[in-house]
Amino acid sequence: MPKKIYFTPGPSQLHYSFEFHLKKAMDESIGSISHRSNAFKKIYQETEAALRALFSLPDDFHVLFLSSATDIWERILQNLVVDASHHFVNGAFSQRFYDFSQLLGLNSTQTVASPGEEFASLDVPADTELIAVTQNETSTGYGFSRDNLKALRSAHPDTLVAVDAVSSIPAVPLDFGDLDMTYFSVQKCFGLPAGLGVWILNERAITKYHQLASKQQVSGTYRSLGTMLKQAEKHQTPETPNVLFIYLLGKVATEMLQKGTKSIINDTIYKSSILYQTLENHPKFTPFVSDPANRSKTVIVAECEDIQSQVLSDLEKKGLVLGKGYGAFKEKHIRIANFPAHSKEQIEMLCDLLEKY
Amino acid sequence: MPKKIYFTPGPSQLHYSFEFHLKKAMDESIGSISHRSNAFKKIYQETEAALRALFSLPDDFHVLFLSSATDIWERILQNLVVDASHHFVNGAFSQRFYDFSQLLGLNSTQTVASPGEEFASLDVPADTELIAVTQNETSTGYGFSRDNLKALRSAHPDTLVAVDAVSSIPAVPLDFGDLDMTYFSVQKCFGLPAGLGVWILNERAITKYHQLASKQQVSGTYRSLGTMLKQAEKHQTPETPNVLFIYLLGKVATEMLQKGTKSIINDTIYKSSILYQTLENHPKFTPFVSDPANRSKTVIVAECEDIQSQVLSDLEKKGLVLGKGYGAFKEKHIRIANFPAHSKEQIEMLCDLLEKY
Repeated sequence: MPKKIYFTPGPSQLHYSFEFHLKKAMDESIGSISHRSNAFKKIYQETEAALRALFSLPDDFHVLFLSSATDIWERILQNLVVDASHHFVNGAFSQRFYDFSQLLGLNSTQTVASPGEEFASLDVPADTELIAVTQNETSTGYGFSRDNLKALRSAHPDTLVAVDAVSSIPAVPLDFGDLDMTYFSVQKCFGLPAGLGVWILNERAITKYHQLASKQQVSGTYRSLGTMLKQAEKHQTPETPNVLFIYLLGKVATEMLQKGTKSIINDTIYKSSILYQTLENHPKFTPFVSDPANRSKTVIVAECEDIQSQVLSDLEKKGLVLGKGYGAFKEKHIRIANFPAHSKEQIEMLCDLLEKY
Repeated sequence: MPKKIYFTPGPSQLHYSFEFHLKKAMDESIGSISHRSNAFKKIYQETEAALRALFSLPDDFHVLFLSSATDIWERILQNLVVDASHHFVNGAFSQRFYDFSQLLGLNSTQTVASPGEEFASLDVPADTELIAVTQNETSTGYGFSRDNLKALRSAHPDTLVAVDAVSSIPAVPLDFGDLDMTYFSVQKCFGLPAGLGVWILNERAITKYHQLASKQQVSGTYRSLGTMLKQAEKHQTPETPNVLFIYLLGKVATEMLQKGTKSIINDTIYKSSILYQTLENHPKFTPFVSDPANRSKTVIVAECEDIQSQVLSDLEKKGLVLGKGYGAFKEKHIRIANFPAHSKEQIEMLCDLLEKY
């Protein structure tokens, strides 16, 4: 039986060459090498270099490997916020980052919009230390626009800006001039299994950390930025990391680089366009995010009247696994991942099948 | 060229059937399935059940999946210690757990012995909330004896006891009646690549957590015990976990179970005996831990005069990768992992080669 195609919004379809690189990793004993060996340091350097090139990363940005984006949420707040961050919340994941601030006892604030809706205002309290924006809200398919991100940055040039790009980069453009840090998980756009998160942050964020650290205003142990950066300079991590996935991320990023970031972004636009067109032209499907300007290009979410479970089960029988809705929308939405691992042909086939309803 | 055999003390040699299960995982699309799906919940249950059987775990123990033992150190202290833990320290890893307590601002105490030496006393301050013992100090090859563990437990029946079994279980016996929690990393005795830690803890520890939580005396976000246990009840984790490795751990644990814990323990004793015998009978090697009663059975550490780098490079040319010393002993020691993935034949071959010096 042929393998199913996973359009779930992460974990999702694996990168087309994933198994090839996995086999090669086994041949090279990547699962056995020490995380303190030169062999590992070389892998670390290669993966970092591939990511830098893929994202056209400015020189003052650093790349850190952690275990998940959830891990990174906690570490951003512990290392960089003493009193209050401000969060733009219109879905489950942006909400959860804000919730972490409350669990850590911060006086953080939020601007809340209904799930999938645009924010009425981009205002931020004057004493905010860090602005948290979700470029791609995986739960609802809302895409925070580049214009809004630029507006936020220019209105608050002295405040740190953190962009959650968990399910968007490198498939959606991100201008590193508009932010001080971003982060992603490898099980979304990079087509890897889950188990690795990447935090990318600039010197300005690190300077802020050192200011706070000198006043004993940061918390944490092995994930303090000081400890992580000291190890990163040696191309290592404080803990024994997921060596195999760091290796595999480097291989996938290198292949993406050969294809070209522009080409990946353009393919993503094309595939998302035909998906939204299919949904809009269909009497039983409605894109959940009403304003096309705010629609995610990597996680396409649709309301589908009473046929949701029917659609999901029919398509799964045909070998196509779509995502359910998230949280309160579990039984109401379908979510379709449109990641670089999803080929044009696969998306076209999916559109054909959806049209038949 | 045949693949090298890794005797490094973790990451180390992969379990003999690892690649078989990895291939099967790819056939079953384990890297793509959602961590909220029934398929994942089934994997979680199977892995937990295999570990329970392998360790003969009493019913009141819970099993949690985290990202590393380093992660677990931090979470033990955040969730279960308000004022002070007490640490038995005679090597780099027991030291590091104590260091975490200082970074978290606790008034923890330590009983320090020279690296590899026995502790002069097993006394613990009266108000200690948690006693931290390292069953197998991976840095020096010191094994904390069962008798000492029993003595500690019976002298402090009301204090939580945490046993670091990172590089020992299931190859070394551990009586769960003597402890309230233990933890390990999969890249040691389970023969997997690094990227997953397992925390096993009992109801007594959880009761303590709830007492502290009700008084707002715990810290942390997604790794609070309350959040983790709530998800564990549903066979899930708060974050997107390393699904693939949880699956693989279950497969390896199931195979170990078929072999039998007793048989694994006996093989470990046999292999460690011939290794220590080889080292003792050799004029140029000396087991670092002088008292045989305190010698680790899974990480064998030897001083080797001026020939350390020669031995390591000669053996690597022959396809056998041994570990360097840890920290200050980097250039002075060799460390030899004796994990279940290392066959009797491999260890015998290694002994033959060492004898030739």
